Formats: sequence, structure tokens, C-alpha cells
Amino acid sequence: MRLALDASQTSGSIALEDAGRVVYSACFDIDITHSEALMPQVDHALKFCGFRPADISTLLLTLGPGSFTGLRIGLATAKGIAYGLKIPLLTFDTLRLCSLARYHCRRRILAVLDAKMKEIYAALYDENLCEIEAPRVCSPEEIADWDLENCYVLGSGAPIIAPVFQNRKLETISVPSQPLNAAGLFTLAELFPQNESYDFDRLARLDPLYLRESTAQIRRRLQPR
Amino acid sequence: MRLALDASQTSGSIALEDAGRVVYSACFDIDITHSEALMPQVDHALKFCGFRPADISTLLLTLGPGSFTGLRIGLATAKGIAYGLKIPLLTFDTLRLCSLARYHCRRRILAVLDAKMKEIYAALYDENLCEIEAPRVCSPEEIADWDLENCYVLGSGAPIIAPVFQNRKLETISVPSQPLNAAGLFTLAELFPQNESYDFDRLARLDPLYLRESTAQIRRRLQPR
Repeated sequence: MRLALDASQTSGSIALEDAGRVVYSACFDIDITHSEALMPQVDHALKFCGFRPADISTLLLTLGPGSFTGLRIGLATAKGIAYGLKIPLLTFDTLRLCSLARYHCRRRILAVLDAKMKEIYAALYDENLCEIEAPRVCSPEEIADWDLENCYVLGSGAPIIAPVFQNRKLETISVPSQPLNAAGLFTLAELFPQNESYDFDRLARLDPLYLRESTAQIRRRLQPR
Repeated sequence: MRLALDASQTSGSIALEDAGRVVYSACFDIDITHSEALMPQVDHALKFCGFRPADISTLLLTLGPGSFTGLRIGLATAKGIAYGLKIPLLTFDTLRLCSLARYHCRRRILAVLDAKMKEIYAALYDENLCEIEAPRVCSPEEIADWDLENCYVLGSGAPIIAPVFQNRKLETISVPSQPLNAAGLFTLAELFPQNESYDFDRLARLDPLYLRESTAQIRRRLQPR
């Protein structure tokens, strides 16, 4: 049985796959459920499906970009389980997971997440989810030079960049918004196979994909002690 | 707060929407969770999000086609809640919910569900999810005359009709399969607005969209008492 986790957004998500089938998936608004603690959610999902933690053979996780706190909680939880069970941890880009909803739709896919402070996390993919523009944090105006004509636009940042598209008279196709679903990570793992062995050194070194310094880091750098 | 339910397939689903945002959604394999009883799932979801049943303002439900037992349980549960709270019950076609994953993708969408007994439930939609071929139950061969060139194919019935497409040398685009998600019903309710008033007579008359007689019904009809 494989466990997939996403805690990168205001909506967290958990999914279980057994014998090639998604047997459970859930998305929950972190604001409303106060579920910053991901572990009780994992425990509920396992019990609900009649599994024990030792049944987990592989972990899948979104590494970022996204909420700093969420990414840290997600990675810490996943590292703990992987270390305890000596199982592989596969990591994925949040923006690629976001763009999966328009896989093989014959057009480019712009994934945009709200990065707060008037910035966005953005990446551009082709229809096979291969990177055309790598994930970055920037102002909405900065992506206007990307080749976006008639692309799909997905993610929580879509409303933020809409005025930029209007100014440039860019035609794009918006997609009904849905919470990010960790179940998509099973599909990404098939499309982009990774080394699935347990590797303590890699696990210990793994950092969230923050893309930018936190406000705390900037403050520390700018303020001499 | 609005509650969406789907019990039409081997995977059941529940979703809650509050203030225009999906705050909770879950898909669970009915085989593995033995959750034929939908009510405990609803109760768990409400408690998890801090809601009481009386907070539900509108119900959304897939009426079929799908598993006969699942459809009956879904409709009975939804009717009970709607009657108890005197709230509107909006109903949707399972095949249209299925095809939502390729909404506005500029091609036709074939939604196919496994109807067992070597048959399928199938419907064909345009990119706006308007019906081109209405939902029906039939053999895989019977839909081969539909205009399917280069359409998207979604749903649990996709593997069943693949050989038919190969025989006819029909090019189609398969979509990574995901469990049906009740959260999509909130989007369908926006795309296809319905009368949202409480109507006891309509509620009492509402039947599942079976599309075909059950084996039990056929047996009763064929066997004279």
C-alpha cells in the first residue's frame, strides 16, 4: 500500500493506493479543520481502510512550492514515517501536481499558486507535463512574457494574474478550480518514474522546495545582531 | 454549507462546500471500507469540519447511472436528509460528473462506466458538457457509430471499449483515471443551474436513474406467479 501526502496549500490532502487502485483520498481545508497536525489525518485514513502503518510500502509527497509551515510539516511527517519504516520517499513539484488536471489536453499548461505578498509561484508545462518554464516565485507581470497564448490556467493564483492577461489581451482557458488532490501523485509517479529505493542520506538531506526565503530568514539576514 | 454525495460506483464520495469553497472532500473504495452505509461517512465529515446536520442548506447527489444498490442508498440517504431539514436536493448525471475532468478542453468527451454483464453506461458530451448522445446502457459495439474521432475517453468503462476502438482504428485520448469526486457536483450546479427550492412532491417522486431493469425486475417480469 502506498501513501501520498500534500500539505503545501490551505487545503491538505491524503491518498492511499492499494494494488494499483486509489482506495481512499481526502482533501480538507486546513483553516476549517485546524489540521496543521497531519499525522492524525494519516492515522484516521489508515484505520478507516483497515491498514496499519507498517503496511505502507512507499511514500509520495509534494515538496513545494507552497505554504512554508505546510511544507515543513509535510516533509517532517513524511521523513519520520520513511525513516521509521525504512521505505522510499518520492517527492514531487506542487505546480506539476496542479497541472495534472489538464494532462494530454494538447495545449500548454500554466500552473499558478498564490505566494502572498503580491507574488505568485508559477511554472509552464507542455501537454506531457514537461517543464517549459521552471517553477519560480515572481510578480504576476514577470510571467507575461512567457508563451501563454491559449494555454490552460490552473491553481489558486489564477485570479491574481487575470488582470495581467487582460492588459496584454492574452487569450487563456481557465479551468474550474478544485483542491489539490494527493491521489494525483500516484499518476505522476507513473509518468515520471523515480529511484524507489530507501536512501538514508538522501532522506536526511531533503529540503522543502521553498523557492524564496521566508520573511524570518530575510529579517535575520538584514538585521545585524 | 452544501453537502454533495456520490454512491454510484465502487468508490463513494462526499464533499462539503462553505462560502463558495470546497472545505472537505473524500473518495473511498466501498469494497475496502465496507461503507455501504453512507450516513456514518456524512457524520464523520460534518464533525471533522465542525458542522452540525442543521448547517446543511442544499444537497447535491448523483442520480445515476451506476450500481443499483449504491444509487438506492445514495438517494434514500439524500431524501432523508432533505426531508428532515426541508432543504433542496439537486440531482446530477453520473456520466456528466465523470466528463467534468475534461470540461473546456476543446474536444468531445465520451464518459463510459462499467455496467457489468458485458454492457456499459455511456454518454457523449461536447466540451461544454452538453449532451450529444444521451446516457444509455448498451454493448461496447453499439457506441462505435457515435462521432468519437479524437474524443477524450473517461471512466471505469474505458478498458472495456478499448478493443472496439482498435478494431475500428478510432483515435481517442485516454485520461488518467481518478475516483469520481462529489466535489465536482458544486461545479456542475454552477454550470447547469437548477430550481433550488424545497419541493416535497418532487422529492417523493424522485427515482434513481437506473437506465436498465435490475436482474430482479427482469426475473419478476419473466416468471409468471
